Amino acid sequence: MITASNDYPKEIVLMASNEETDHILGFESSTDIKKLIKQAKEVLDKNWTGKFTKPTSGLYPHQWSWDSCFIAIGYAHYNQERAEKELRHLFSGQWNNGMVPQIVFNSDDEDTDYFPGTDFWQTSCSPNAPGEPDTSGICQPPVHATALLLLLENAKDAEKAERLARELFPKIKAWHDYLYRERDPLNEDLVYVRHPWESGQDNSPVWDQVLKRMDLEEQDKPDYERTDTKHVDTAVRPTDFSYDRYIYLVNYFRDRNYDENEIYRDGCPFLVQDILFNSLLCRANRDLARIAGWLGKDALPFHERALKTAKAVNNKLWDEEDGIYISYDLRADQHISGHSLAGFLPLYAHIPSPSRARRLFDYLDTGSFCELDESCFAIPTYDRRREEYTPKKYWRGPIWINLNWLLYHGLTNYGRQRYQHYIKQSIIYLINMSGFYEYYSPENGDGYGSKDFSWSAALFLDIIGLKRIELKDEM
Amino acid sequence: MITASNDYPKEIVLMASNEETDHILGFESSTDIKKLIKQAKEVLDKNWTGKFTKPTSGLYPHQWSWDSCFIAIGYAHYNQERAEKELRHLFSGQWNNGMVPQIVFNSDDEDTDYFPGTDFWQTSCSPNAPGEPDTSGICQPPVHATALLLLLENAKDAEKAERLARELFPKIKAWHDYLYRERDPLNEDLVYVRHPWESGQDNSPVWDQVLKRMDLEEQDKPDYERTDTKHVDTAVRPTDFSYDRYIYLVNYFRDRNYDENEIYRDGCPFLVQDILFNSLLCRANRDLARIAGWLGKDALPFHERALKTAKAVNNKLWDEEDGIYISYDLRADQHISGHSLAGFLPLYAHIPSPSRARRLFDYLDTGSFCELDESCFAIPTYDRRREEYTPKKYWRGPIWINLNWLLYHGLTNYGRQRYQHYIKQSIIYLINMSGFYEYYSPENGDGYGSKDFSWSAALFLDIIGLKRIELKDEM
Repeated sequence: MITASNDYPKEIVLMASNEETDHILGFESSTDIKKLIKQAKEVLDKNWTGKFTKPTSGLYPHQWSWDSCFIAIGYAHYNQERAEKELRHLFSGQWNNGMVPQIVFNSDDEDTDYFPGTDFWQTSCSPNAPGEPDTSGICQPPVHATALLLLLENAKDAEKAERLARELFPKIKAWHDYLYRERDPLNEDLVYVRHPWESGQDNSPVWDQVLKRMDLEEQDKPDYERTDTKHVDTAVRPTDFSYDRYIYLVNYFRDRNYDENEIYRDGCPFLVQDILFNSLLCRANRDLARIAGWLGKDALPFHERALKTAKAVNNKLWDEEDGIYISYDLRADQHISGHSLAGFLPLYAHIPSPSRARRLFDYLDTGSFCELDESCFAIPTYDRRREEYTPKKYWRGPIWINLNWLLYHGLTNYGRQRYQHYIKQSIIYLINMSGFYEYYSPENGDGYGSKDFSWSAALFLDIIGLKRIELKDEM
Repeated sequence: MITASNDYPKEIVLMASNEETDHILGFESSTDIKKLIKQAKEVLDKNWTGKFTKPTSGLYPHQWSWDSCFIAIGYAHYNQERAEKELRHLFSGQWNNGMVPQIVFNSDDEDTDYFPGTDFWQTSCSPNAPGEPDTSGICQPPVHATALLLLLENAKDAEKAERLARELFPKIKAWHDYLYRERDPLNEDLVYVRHPWESGQDNSPVWDQVLKRMDLEEQDKPDYERTDTKHVDTAVRPTDFSYDRYIYLVNYFRDRNYDENEIYRDGCPFLVQDILFNSLLCRANRDLARIAGWLGKDALPFHERALKTAKAVNNKLWDEEDGIYISYDLRADQHISGHSLAGFLPLYAHIPSPSRARRLFDYLDTGSFCELDESCFAIPTYDRRREEYTPKKYWRGPIWINLNWLLYHGLTNYGRQRYQHYIKQSIIYLINMSGFYEYYSPENGDGYGSKDFSWSAALFLDIIGLKRIELKDEM
């Protein structure tokens, strides 16, 4: 114990160190957390193309929209230049109507076997698609304003970051404008996704009821060859049943030249007000408001959108019986009963009132997800007590670092410091045990899907507070 | 080091503990942080009256406005009932015009010698003052929405906290309405304080130029007897020169029946757009917006006010030459050149852009305040390199826990984790070394003013994350 003394001990400077994390983890020296940091950076180096970062080599050889945002959040702590390039390159693929596409294809690497590739998407049939670079014709969750805000907050060169912000601000505004203009036909302040891939959680059990309703005749079944299962075990990937429908939907969009009015009017079979997408949009509006204020622009419209979407989420997407948020199937005009981790993530946007947050927590802190006393491995993607839960199958159960990261930050404003701390520790523990995998089994912590997965590395660097640890070393 | 294993170790549950804090501090066991927690609670128990909490016994025997807010923030972590009573009792003294008074007098304790007391204030001459309880006729910084939000976020009984929020929401709205209606005569979106006590930093060197301009004739000098110096050393309290002017101003207000129009129109000699007051108001608006959203009320007007005040702070109160925010003397129509810790606290309201924040940090991280490498004791209230700096004299230099707490949270969104962490550690260190004092010398960490000071105890409990530590014990 430090004794009272008029000499201020030098140690107090040194203690703001990685030792904090080390100690908690039971590491005996500071070497191990440094080793993990080094490994995380190596993962990102390996996947860095010079223009953007691939989610992983092999399976995902192009640039993905929300992946790049999470990756930029990691870079923001130690490589501002890459973070800026990452976001700039992504927005180079933005459509004329404002849509930020799910994939910006890597024109430097023609040898990839990725399916569906540019030949299949044929987005040039849309007047909205940019000529160059080539992109897919759908989008992913809107975490772009959030990534830009975190880049601004952590930038070493603040002036440079502000120049980027001035450049991207109108583009992100156009992206949000697109969503509210073209994806909210009933003016509900909730936007729809029209493909499971747009939700970011491709084969979540949440989509089962919608996909099952798509009763494809033999002649409707698309002719294609999957390539994902060449890279990773079929057992941990979506089924062919789902894949047929994913591809059917792509055909559906392409046949309509990616015209949103036509897609909606013709009765696209997959139209869902997704709880995660709308929560992230709500948060992104608020983050864009902060950016607008800093740039001297009018921030109020973004606050207004955030408030309206928050209200709509609370009014329409709350399951009072089970105490969790759920998505809405616009085509069937009914709620979707699946309970996924995404159902808690309105917390990240401060959407639930404290009493709703308590109900969420009453559910989260059980064997369905992760009871604190139970020593589980972080938080699985889907309710473990439901039969659809599949621990190793992509978005049907496994632990994903990005959703855990969102939950971690979401708990900040709901007084759940202990649970929050537990999530952080679990992420570090999982990564230390199994490496930077795409996802992990909630049963034993084993890694699945791709290894050396970029966002697992990037969000690890964010959650451990890399900057604090590294600045210590510079002293 | 933890080795890879399929058995999830029980330790991971246990590590989310106070050991984290202990280790950083060099404590050898968990006993010591627990001892500090126990002592902090004892301070609050000692000052708790059954209805509210005195800042300290003897020197401050009544209820002070911003003290109670900080105190409620501490209680929110372990004693929701007291936190609620604290705020309710404070608002029982709210004026009809919306003003939340600086002091709500303790009618149960007639024996106090506090000066100026109810006989001196005579606020019953104002039609706006509540008949019961008796109050002073000025206000203090608006951290009420902030305290209520933190209470909501941390409440064990969320429904009960929401009932309180419904009760207080219109009152806090009326308080902000009052400030914008009566304290912003030129519609600048900046409100003025009309007494150094309203700023919360009574004898800050920042007020020197304003007080010196108040050239009191002999007949203007008020007749009164100070009592504060009976409780603590005269050397650490404001001078008689200042005190004469404090009391002159009270007389000035009373002579005008606390009528704001009259006070302004007659040319009150102290009218200042204070940087701390306005920054806290900006943040409070945003916090009230969050509360409004949770209660299903219209949050947009509060966002609008926050944005307008942030813009006005940036336009009018920024010192481009020195890279710090400063206050504005409305009477002399000029900026005030003093540089206090308050000049950094727009950070707490997210007011500075990242590039301005960098300039602030360039100043903060020097010998003027606290250079990280220098091993100083947290952050003094005033620039140590200026001649007005006085290390033991109240608001002219000493370390105050509340301003450090505001800076700590303010740095969260500016990527300064290491500095932030340092402030937290310094607060713990100071308290461990010297106890829960009103303020501390930046030279040697010794405590000054009153001991057993409530907000030092309450904000200590907040900053260490009491809830996480205590929940651990309950397991």
